[in-house]
Amino acid sequence: MSLIVQKFGGTSVANAERINNVANIVTETYSKGNDVVVVVSAQGDTTDELIAKGNEINPNASKRERDMLVSAGEQISIALLAMAIEKLGFPVVSLLGWQAGFQTSSAHTTARIKRVIPNRIRKELDKKCIVIVAGFQGLSRYDDITTLGRGGSDTSAVAIAASMHADLCQIYTDVEGVYTADPRLVKNAKKLKAISYDEMLELATLGAQVLNNRSVEMAKKYNIELEVLSSMVKAPGTIVKEIGKMEKMLISGVAKDADIARISIVGVPDQPGFAFKIFSKLASKNINVDIILQSIGHNGKKDISFTIPKDRAEDAEKLVNEYAEAIGAKETIISTEVAKISIVGAGMESHAGVATKMFEALYDAQINIQMIATSEIKVSVLIDKKDADRAVTAIHDKFFEQ
Amino acid sequence: MSLIVQKFGGTSVANAERINNVANIVTETYSKGNDVVVVVSAQGDTTDELIAKGNEINPNASKRERDMLVSAGEQISIALLAMAIEKLGFPVVSLLGWQAGFQTSSAHTTARIKRVIPNRIRKELDKKCIVIVAGFQGLSRYDDITTLGRGGSDTSAVAIAASMHADLCQIYTDVEGVYTADPRLVKNAKKLKAISYDEMLELATLGAQVLNNRSVEMAKKYNIELEVLSSMVKAPGTIVKEIGKMEKMLISGVAKDADIARISIVGVPDQPGFAFKIFSKLASKNINVDIILQSIGHNGKKDISFTIPKDRAEDAEKLVNEYAEAIGAKETIISTEVAKISIVGAGMESHAGVATKMFEALYDAQINIQMIATSEIKVSVLIDKKDADRAVTAIHDKFFEQ
Repeated sequence: MSLIVQKFGGTSVANAERINNVANIVTETYSKGNDVVVVVSAQGDTTDELIAKGNEINPNASKRERDMLVSAGEQISIALLAMAIEKLGFPVVSLLGWQAGFQTSSAHTTARIKRVIPNRIRKELDKKCIVIVAGFQGLSRYDDITTLGRGGSDTSAVAIAASMHADLCQIYTDVEGVYTADPRLVKNAKKLKAISYDEMLELATLGAQVLNNRSVEMAKKYNIELEVLSSMVKAPGTIVKEIGKMEKMLISGVAKDADIARISIVGVPDQPGFAFKIFSKLASKNINVDIILQSIGHNGKKDISFTIPKDRAEDAEKLVNEYAEAIGAKETIISTEVAKISIVGAGMESHAGVATKMFEALYDAQINIQMIATSEIKVSVLIDKKDADRAVTAIHDKFFEQ
Repeated sequence: MSLIVQKFGGTSVANAERINNVANIVTETYSKGNDVVVVVSAQGDTTDELIAKGNEINPNASKRERDMLVSAGEQISIALLAMAIEKLGFPVVSLLGWQAGFQTSSAHTTARIKRVIPNRIRKELDKKCIVIVAGFQGLSRYDDITTLGRGGSDTSAVAIAASMHADLCQIYTDVEGVYTADPRLVKNAKKLKAISYDEMLELATLGAQVLNNRSVEMAKKYNIELEVLSSMVKAPGTIVKEIGKMEKMLISGVAKDADIARISIVGVPDQPGFAFKIFSKLASKNINVDIILQSIGHNGKKDISFTIPKDRAEDAEKLVNEYAEAIGAKETIISTEVAKISIVGAGMESHAGVATKMFEALYDAQINIQMIATSEIKVSVLIDKKDADRAVTAIHDKFFEQ
């Protein structure tokens, strides 16, 4: 008998039919003799509807009251799922975040889980109940309802799995697993059987978001085996776990991120400190800089280019223009017509030539590389946005089809 | 400085505009230097919508999960009201039933308040906060969310007032107070300045429902002064309190109840025990019998007539028919074309002739009386439903217009 934590997102419980489907998955797992704890998000658009209701009355309401409002969403979904499971004749109980023992920081709307004290969950499991827990929410030390911020239900599930030493934490979603590339883009994309925590983290930040990053970090820290799988299609998903050196795939995926912008400052004086200053200015405005490229100084001048999230492009441009003027740089160039293509693979660490193979694929497809960045398990290139989809396919075929 | 508890029902917080209106009433009371605790029901039809959602999935769901589902309704309304008050610039905090210290029995959907431990409320009042409390809900000793059943928010408000020794408990509703008769029916109906707890209780059971009976009983027990008033019209309402003998009005109101049925069993053997048996059968099915009339035995046979709630008429008829057949009674007659007209007045206790005056009014209007029942502070008559409205006006005029 195993302890299995299952998490279902808002799409999986969007209406009565889907809730019944989830009830079937849960009770099937239970019927195999497992203890089952289920973490559920609010139904489909409930959270957005509640936020809209609140904004109609006061768009500047306190975060405490926003949390009070929004956390009603999961309360509704856990009760409905419990009712559906009752109809199938199984013992079940639904628990709110505070009932399930979620203690969080008091940073309303973006609270962090401090600990889970799963006494009540354990008591209900001992009574042979299926336990349904409201994701995304907890209680501060002031006895106020908190929420973990968007995507928080994944983290709720992993936190329960960690605190109870669960054997497996299944994250049900609307995709069947983690693929070697976006299956909507690359028709030969393959579902991965397994992937390491680090690769999963890199893929998430690279725009192939299937799992919330905080939850993967927590799973890694507590060594919780995750499975990403579909609530609609019955098939094994992708296991996320620590992977031994020998089993490591050379590369596990190709990802595209088109929501970025590139900024270049041309003619920066070639003196120490200029780069530091511009990046600390951006950091102070919470603008994350990703790839950075600096030309070698020439005639006492150099160029600095970097990428940022597209939705911060305007803020960044304003800041950079002021700075460029102040230091007498020649000009600033901003472009949102760029995309970042990355390959991720824990096997790279021990294999040379992976980057070369990627560049070769791009050369064969006559795609120009603007910038390059590498880490232990990742190679990223910046290219023209119009070439992005072609680049993903070319790289994917090079690695997976030969 | 006084401590004032204000209760607003679902209609009063049905949409953003009405919530803003309630926020104005609350902050005005607070601005006069009062401590204010506000009890709120779920918005308009939220409770019914949630129940419908649950029924779609499982019409036989457990009461525990029904409570979990439905109690999300007040959570939404307290947060929205708090947000509206924040917008007006006042310090405010919303509290769920369990946060406000409502400890109840574990009879889900019809829980009884055992006690209110208002520590958190007091702490927030000490911080000069307006406190918004979710009505209708509490926590069982198993740490499960319970609801008090329909109309429970009135009781929540009175329970807080009792536990905190509030100076006044205002029940805001969609009528301006308690009237001498239904103002939609009798154009000369007058708003009462004050009424005693007992009169209020009789009027509620007589179909002039303005206050939930449990809340009036609790207010009487703890001697909490209630005020029934409108959230839409700014005017003093009706005070419900203990009234000294001298101030007692002869009668305080005329009420009509048309949701009843009359059943007559003709030709019951005139022997002990027959009446007892039929009424215990009805009681076992939770059918409340109101007025009972038994003819004097004649030729070893007698007739028994009684009234019951109209929505139980079918159940009752089936039961009575079986019984009548078994004991060889002649026939059963059922009629739903009846209405009960009642006058209520604490002053009757010390004044003779009140009933006579009522009968005189009916005689003048040529309305036939089918049955009569009296108590210390009430006289009820059963008449033809078609005469009901005319009867109310005739009686009202007799007592209030002369």
